[in-house]
Amino acid sequence: MSVTAAKGFRAAGVTAGLKPSGKPDVALVVNDGPGTAAAAVYTSNRCKANPVLWSEVASADGVVRAVVLNSGGANCYTGPAGFAVTHASAELVARVVGVDAGDVVVCSTGLIGQPLDQPLLEAGIESAAAALAADGGPAAATAIMTTDTVAKETVQAGNGWVVGGMAKGAGMLAPALATMLVVLSTDADVDAAQCDAALRAATRVTFDRLDSDGCQSTNDTVLLMASGASGVRPDADAFTAAVTAVCHDLAQQLMRDAEGADHDIAIEVVHAATEDEAVEVARSVARSNLFKAAVFGRDANWGRVLAAVGTTSAAFDPSVLDVAMNGVWIARDGGPGDSRDGIDLEGRDVHVLIDLKEGDATATVWTNDLTHAYVHENSAYST
Amino acid sequence: MSVTAAKGFRAAGVTAGLKPSGKPDVALVVNDGPGTAAAAVYTSNRCKANPVLWSEVASADGVVRAVVLNSGGANCYTGPAGFAVTHASAELVARVVGVDAGDVVVCSTGLIGQPLDQPLLEAGIESAAAALAADGGPAAATAIMTTDTVAKETVQAGNGWVVGGMAKGAGMLAPALATMLVVLSTDADVDAAQCDAALRAATRVTFDRLDSDGCQSTNDTVLLMASGASGVRPDADAFTAAVTAVCHDLAQQLMRDAEGADHDIAIEVVHAATEDEAVEVARSVARSNLFKAAVFGRDANWGRVLAAVGTTSAAFDPSVLDVAMNGVWIARDGGPGDSRDGIDLEGRDVHVLIDLKEGDATATVWTNDLTHAYVHENSAYST
Repeated sequence: MSVTAAKGFRAAGVTAGLKPSGKPDVALVVNDGPGTAAAAVYTSNRCKANPVLWSEVASADGVVRAVVLNSGGANCYTGPAGFAVTHASAELVARVVGVDAGDVVVCSTGLIGQPLDQPLLEAGIESAAAALAADGGPAAATAIMTTDTVAKETVQAGNGWVVGGMAKGAGMLAPALATMLVVLSTDADVDAAQCDAALRAATRVTFDRLDSDGCQSTNDTVLLMASGASGVRPDADAFTAAVTAVCHDLAQQLMRDAEGADHDIAIEVVHAATEDEAVEVARSVARSNLFKAAVFGRDANWGRVLAAVGTTSAAFDPSVLDVAMNGVWIARDGGPGDSRDGIDLEGRDVHVLIDLKEGDATATVWTNDLTHAYVHENSAYST
Repeated sequence: MSVTAAKGFRAAGVTAGLKPSGKPDVALVVNDGPGTAAAAVYTSNRCKANPVLWSEVASADGVVRAVVLNSGGANCYTGPAGFAVTHASAELVARVVGVDAGDVVVCSTGLIGQPLDQPLLEAGIESAAAALAADGGPAAATAIMTTDTVAKETVQAGNGWVVGGMAKGAGMLAPALATMLVVLSTDADVDAAQCDAALRAATRVTFDRLDSDGCQSTNDTVLLMASGASGVRPDADAFTAAVTAVCHDLAQQLMRDAEGADHDIAIEVVHAATEDEAVEVARSVARSNLFKAAVFGRDANWGRVLAAVGTTSAAFDPSVLDVAMNGVWIARDGGPGDSRDGIDLEGRDVHVLIDLKEGDATATVWTNDLTHAYVHENSAYST
C-alpha cells in the first residue's frame, strides 16, 4: 500500500512512453485532505535539475496537494526549455486534479542533459489522473523505477494514524546512475512545521548517512504530505519516530538495491568527540575506493580503514585507534589486533566498528563495495 | 642518471629479500656534500607510518645526509616495534655511511600492518652501502618500485647545476596500492630555506594536484637534498622552476603508470574566483566515481562533470557553466552544447575544461579513470 496506506491519498502509475523499455514511467500522488501540510528536502547540489528548481518554490509555503513523478528523463541541464516542461507539467496536474499549480511538486529521474518529450509526458499525466485510486501506491512505486530491480515501499503504524512511503534509487543522496526520489504520506493531523521538523530529523540520520558512491544527484527529493484524514494529532516524538522508521527502512532498501554492489557496509564510529566528527570519520571510510574494493575482494584490509580515518580532522589519537570488522578486533591501538582469519566477508552484510576513544558520540554511515559491476554499469550507461 | 645526475651524490639499489618476488628492494642515496641542505614534505594523513614519524624529526633541521628506502613493506601500523626497526635502519645507515643518524631519512613502501624483517633489511643496507656509486641512480630507482611497471627518473639542467630525481608510486599523494616516494637531488649551492621554499612551491602545483583515486597514503614522502657541489648559487626563481619541472615530470610519470588506469585525465578549471576554488572544483570532478567510470566507457558524460562541480562551494552560476572535453564545448550555459559525437575518447589523454566565468584564477588537477583493472588490483592485493 505504501504511499496510499494513509487515508486521504490516491495514487497511480502509468506508461507514458518516456522509457524505451515501455515500462511504467509516470506516477501521480494526490492528497485529498482535509489537510494540506507538507515538507520537503532537496539535493544540496548547486547544479539542480529543473523539477527541483520548481518544487523548491512550490513546497516552500508548506502546502502540497499533489506530486507528479516521471522516470525516463531527469530534465536536468536542459535549460529554460526544460524548466518550461516542468512548469507545464505542474499546470496540467493542477488542472486535471483540481488544485493550484503552486501546490504541485514535480520530480524527474533518468538521463540528464536530454529534453523530456512534453506531449508524451502530458498524455501520461492525463492517464495517471484518470487512474488515481486509493490502492494505487504500488503502481506509483513501480512507475518511478529506473535501474532499480525492485519497487521500494514501507508503512509504519502510529496510534490511530500511519506513515507510508515509496522510494526509487539504486544508491542515495549520493546515488550511482540514479536519483533518489522519496514520497511519504501520513494521515496524522500535523501542520507544516511538524512535518518539516520530523522530516529533517529523520533524513539527517537516514538518507543523509547513506553514501553509496559519494556522488550526489541533481534531482534528489524527499517529500512528506499529511492529509490529517485520521483526525488524530500524534505526539511529536512518536510522529518523528515513525517518519524516521519509514525513512530508515526505505534507505536500507535503497542500499540493498545499489547498482552493482556485492556488499552492504555499515560503518559505525563510537566514542567520537561529537556526532559530526563521528559522521566525518564514517563518511571518509565510506568514500575510500581502496577500502570498498577490498571489501569486494573479501579482504579485511583494516589498514585502509585507518588510512581513511587519518585523512579526517576528527579528534583522535592514531596510536590508540581500534577497528573491528564483523565482530573481530583486527586493529588495536593503531596496530595489528586479532587474526583476520576469523572474518568471513562472503555474506552481503559487513559491519565496520571504529573506536576513536575520545568521547561519547556515535554515528553510522552506510555504503556499498566497489565492484566490477559498478564500473560496468556506470561506464556503459548512456552509450 | 636521475638522483645521481647532480654532482656530490652516490646511490645504490640492491636485493635484500624483503619482496617475495626477489626483485631489488633496498635503495640508498647519499649526499657527499660539501653542502647538507635539505627539505621534505610528508603525507598529511594523521595515521602516519613509522618511517614518516622518524623522518619528520630527522629532516626538521634542514640537514639530511642520506636516505634509505625499502619496498616490500610499509612499516605502517606496526606499533613501537615497527618504529624500532625504522630507528635501527637509520642508525645502521649512519654507521656505514659515516653520518649522524639524525641526518638519515627513512622511507618504506609496500603492505601495511605487517612487520618488516629487520635482519634482511639490515643486510640489505650493508650491501647497498657497499654498492654506492656515482652512477647508481637507476639502480636506486628500480629498487623502490612496488606495483610500478617502470622506474621513474628525470633530470632538469640549470645554469651550471642540475636537479634530478626518482619516484615510485602507481598513483600519488592519493595513491592506489602504492605510496608515493620521491627523492630529488641538486648540486646547486642552496641553503635549507631555499630548498624548502622551492620544494613547497613545486609540490603545491604538481604532486598535490595529482589525485588518482582520492586515497591518501600513510607513507608519502618527497625529499630534496642539495650538495652544493656545483659551486653555483642559482637564481631563486630559476631554482624553483627547475624543481617544479622535475616534480611535474615525475608526477606525470606517476599518473601514466597508475594502477589499472586506461586514461590520464587533466581537469582544467578556468575563470575561477580564486586558485583554491579552481582546485576545489577540479578535485571534485577528479573524485567523482561516476565521471571516472564514464571516461573508462569512452562516454563524454558532461552531466556528471556538472554534478560534481555542483557539490563544491566555489563561486559560480550554474546557469552559465561551460564544459569542454577534448576541445569540444559539450555543455554551454549549464545545458547541452555542441554534439558529443565529435569527441574521441579512445586515446589515453583526456582534457576536461570547465569555465566558471567568475574571475581570473585557474588550476589543473590530474586523475585517472575508474576501470575494471583498478577494482581488480585493489580487491586482490593482500589476499
